[in-house]
Amino acid sequence: MLIIEAACMVPSMLVSLFYKEKAVYSFAISIVITAIAGFILYRLKAPNQNIYARDGFAITALGWLSVTVFGALPFLISGSIPSVIDAFFETASGFTTTGASILREVESLPKGILFWRSFTHWMGGMGVLVLMIAVLPSTKANAVYIMKAEASGPSPDKLVPKIRQTAEILYIIYIAITFIIIVLLLLGGMPLFDSIAHAMGTVSTGGFSVRNASIAAYNSVYIETVIILSMLISGINFTLYYFLLKKNVKGFLKNEELLYYIGVIAVAIVLIVANIYGKVYSTIGESLRYASFQVSSLITTTGYVTADFNQWPTLSQMVLLLIMFIGGCAGSTAGGIKCIRILLLSKMFKREITKLNHPRAVKTVRINGHAVDEEILSGIKMFFFVYVAIFAAGVLVISLEGFDLPTTISAVVATLNDIGPGLGLVGPVGNYADFSVLSKVVLSICMMIGRLEVYPILVLLFPSFWKKNTI
Amino acid sequence: MLIIEAACMVPSMLVSLFYKEKAVYSFAISIVITAIAGFILYRLKAPNQNIYARDGFAITALGWLSVTVFGALPFLISGSIPSVIDAFFETASGFTTTGASILREVESLPKGILFWRSFTHWMGGMGVLVLMIAVLPSTKANAVYIMKAEASGPSPDKLVPKIRQTAEILYIIYIAITFIIIVLLLLGGMPLFDSIAHAMGTVSTGGFSVRNASIAAYNSVYIETVIILSMLISGINFTLYYFLLKKNVKGFLKNEELLYYIGVIAVAIVLIVANIYGKVYSTIGESLRYASFQVSSLITTTGYVTADFNQWPTLSQMVLLLIMFIGGCAGSTAGGIKCIRILLLSKMFKREITKLNHPRAVKTVRINGHAVDEEILSGIKMFFFVYVAIFAAGVLVISLEGFDLPTTISAVVATLNDIGPGLGLVGPVGNYADFSVLSKVVLSICMMIGRLEVYPILVLLFPSFWKKNTI
Repeated sequence: MLIIEAACMVPSMLVSLFYKEKAVYSFAISIVITAIAGFILYRLKAPNQNIYARDGFAITALGWLSVTVFGALPFLISGSIPSVIDAFFETASGFTTTGASILREVESLPKGILFWRSFTHWMGGMGVLVLMIAVLPSTKANAVYIMKAEASGPSPDKLVPKIRQTAEILYIIYIAITFIIIVLLLLGGMPLFDSIAHAMGTVSTGGFSVRNASIAAYNSVYIETVIILSMLISGINFTLYYFLLKKNVKGFLKNEELLYYIGVIAVAIVLIVANIYGKVYSTIGESLRYASFQVSSLITTTGYVTADFNQWPTLSQMVLLLIMFIGGCAGSTAGGIKCIRILLLSKMFKREITKLNHPRAVKTVRINGHAVDEEILSGIKMFFFVYVAIFAAGVLVISLEGFDLPTTISAVVATLNDIGPGLGLVGPVGNYADFSVLSKVVLSICMMIGRLEVYPILVLLFPSFWKKNTI
Repeated sequence: MLIIEAACMVPSMLVSLFYKEKAVYSFAISIVITAIAGFILYRLKAPNQNIYARDGFAITALGWLSVTVFGALPFLISGSIPSVIDAFFETASGFTTTGASILREVESLPKGILFWRSFTHWMGGMGVLVLMIAVLPSTKANAVYIMKAEASGPSPDKLVPKIRQTAEILYIIYIAITFIIIVLLLLGGMPLFDSIAHAMGTVSTGGFSVRNASIAAYNSVYIETVIILSMLISGINFTLYYFLLKKNVKGFLKNEELLYYIGVIAVAIVLIVANIYGKVYSTIGESLRYASFQVSSLITTTGYVTADFNQWPTLSQMVLLLIMFIGGCAGSTAGGIKCIRILLLSKMFKREITKLNHPRAVKTVRINGHAVDEEILSGIKMFFFVYVAIFAAGVLVISLEGFDLPTTISAVVATLNDIGPGLGLVGPVGNYADFSVLSKVVLSICMMIGRLEVYPILVLLFPSFWKKNTI
């Protein structure tokens, strides 16, 4: 796996080479170190080749940890980020597609480093390990557990019987969307390097930019529109695009999660426009422009910004905080709790109310016409509690910093949901540089918990996991 | 029911009479109006006398609404609170034992009105309708549904086979505790009137005081200690005291919820003392004194204060916000989510983790040695989601005010969990006077939702309830 990561650093080295930067040596050293480590681990193969659910979780969590540690090398060696913890935070933020940065400004960084920074987003978006599955020839059938642990949402559909083919199809769609975004951005007059970096940051719902002012730097309605649509497209379940390719348009348009996702976005935009029009912006057009960009960016947990919503009225900020928690669709590159979970929770609640009126009625919760298994429903309710509990625990640790309430709360919201910018000090014009080492570690863990949807990371944290229990 | 409420106003009138206040006429008028309304409704008896779960919920919700409306009469008629919505808010805050006030100062109010204000706490604490059940001779066996709807916590134990006897026993314990507190406060040199009012506000975990500075006005370590212990005792399941009376000391000491409750309090106090010592208070003793009072007051959702925790560091504020959500034990007079629910959620989470390691193991969640029914567990998880969803909805509405984040969030936390004081504008030295009519209505609904634990009020709000469906 690390060998593949080393290979993934090659494009960044080439970019550095192209721009004749010194960072090229940092990449060379990082690639050698990573490859050697990968080679050693490859030799230490485990005797048991069968992978179960728990092992899938563990492999995923450990895989992400090691990829992050080695991914931080280029930042460290090049001196772009001199502190170890800062480099780790930035890399974790990259792979988890959070986009939270400890850098006060980015435009002075070598292009190769910037490219690597955006490339970590791109790798993390569809899943580092799904990439492995797609690339490696020797994948076993039970790799499905790894995919389950890494994929977002409660139960990923298998598109085709073979897991490797599924991974391939998803990556082909992913690459295609990336290319389309690059071309569209180029048409808007964005430089090639910026276009590639932003396309990678958009399709992965990451949020790292190569400009200090993020997308606002271009001040172009065309570019903003392209980014809005691209973000929204990246927040939709990628398997739906496979349906589209199979000419199953009905299945696409009647997908309940998709409708819910669009509904939430529409309501959020309307609420915010009504709230900021006249107060922050003098025209409806401007209000709509900034509201729709920020809503799209935050619900898809991307984190690009074109307005400092720290200055917006309370209602707008609350709406934004709320959609940060909701997040995109399952099976997309977005973070958050995911639309399908919120939708199913609401349906379960409706069923509960019906039960009060008709105590003896047995009703199943249905989505897209199919009844949902009670065990999955129960798991989703549990997930919700655990998610909120982790959020509360994170807030407690971060509050040790003594920052104000908006900063404290939104820092955890923005990392747990893999967004990036929050409110207060970590707002659109702020960054995470002022946090202590403890906070940076905790926020990095939050990002991974958010990206891997709680359990893989928690399995590692729980002592019972380390007991030698034979299954 | 309203007739009984009218009767309950008599003591307040007598207090007014004793202090030779004009408010005595207000009470007389209120009593007559309430009694007449009660008499008319009594005549309009429903033909069907059977009560089911849904009807129990509806009766409870409607009962609370009408009691609140008529309970507001003395405030209105006496002119103490001239605005209708303010009087409704104050009465709702009283009956739900919240203790949130729209009054900027209380010491100038007639004693009779202050007495009525504290008396609403006392009536609401154990449950307005449980009172009816205990007092009325003609209670049917199926009144258990009303008791279920009003009692706090997932599943109230029946102490004795007959529901009316259970209600009686609970009220006897309640009255006994009230008297003990009155005596202890008198011994501390608190005036008789203040002692009675504060005893009623403490045992019900209400929080209305007859002094502007709340308990801080007395600046007495003895009084504070009495109030701390009384609040903590009132936050424990009252059925445990029945066990104690039956000499079942083991059942009392081994109660898991009680241990959890004590544990949370201890951890919260330690965290806050460590956080405020040296920063806010210069001695450990002082830190402990103020930390333990505030923690006891907020976890039992009472709302008495002796320190302005708005000035405390962020960590302390976050710990306080968190324990506000946890609340007291089931079957107590406290609000919040309740310790037993949080405890069971944690146990379910532990089971989930175990399942990952042993996929085929079937484990039940046990409390006090007994396995908990899966349906109850499922209901608790649902409750948690609905509670958080209502909280989010409340925050959205309140954010229309445009107040800062701490005020907006904590106003909903403090009303939904029936506490009273929050942070920012609604902090220990603030009040709810500056909120708009819409916010006051929404916060009043939050208080009732919190006190009746979500479903009774939601049943009323859902249109499907009003359809004429025969069971």
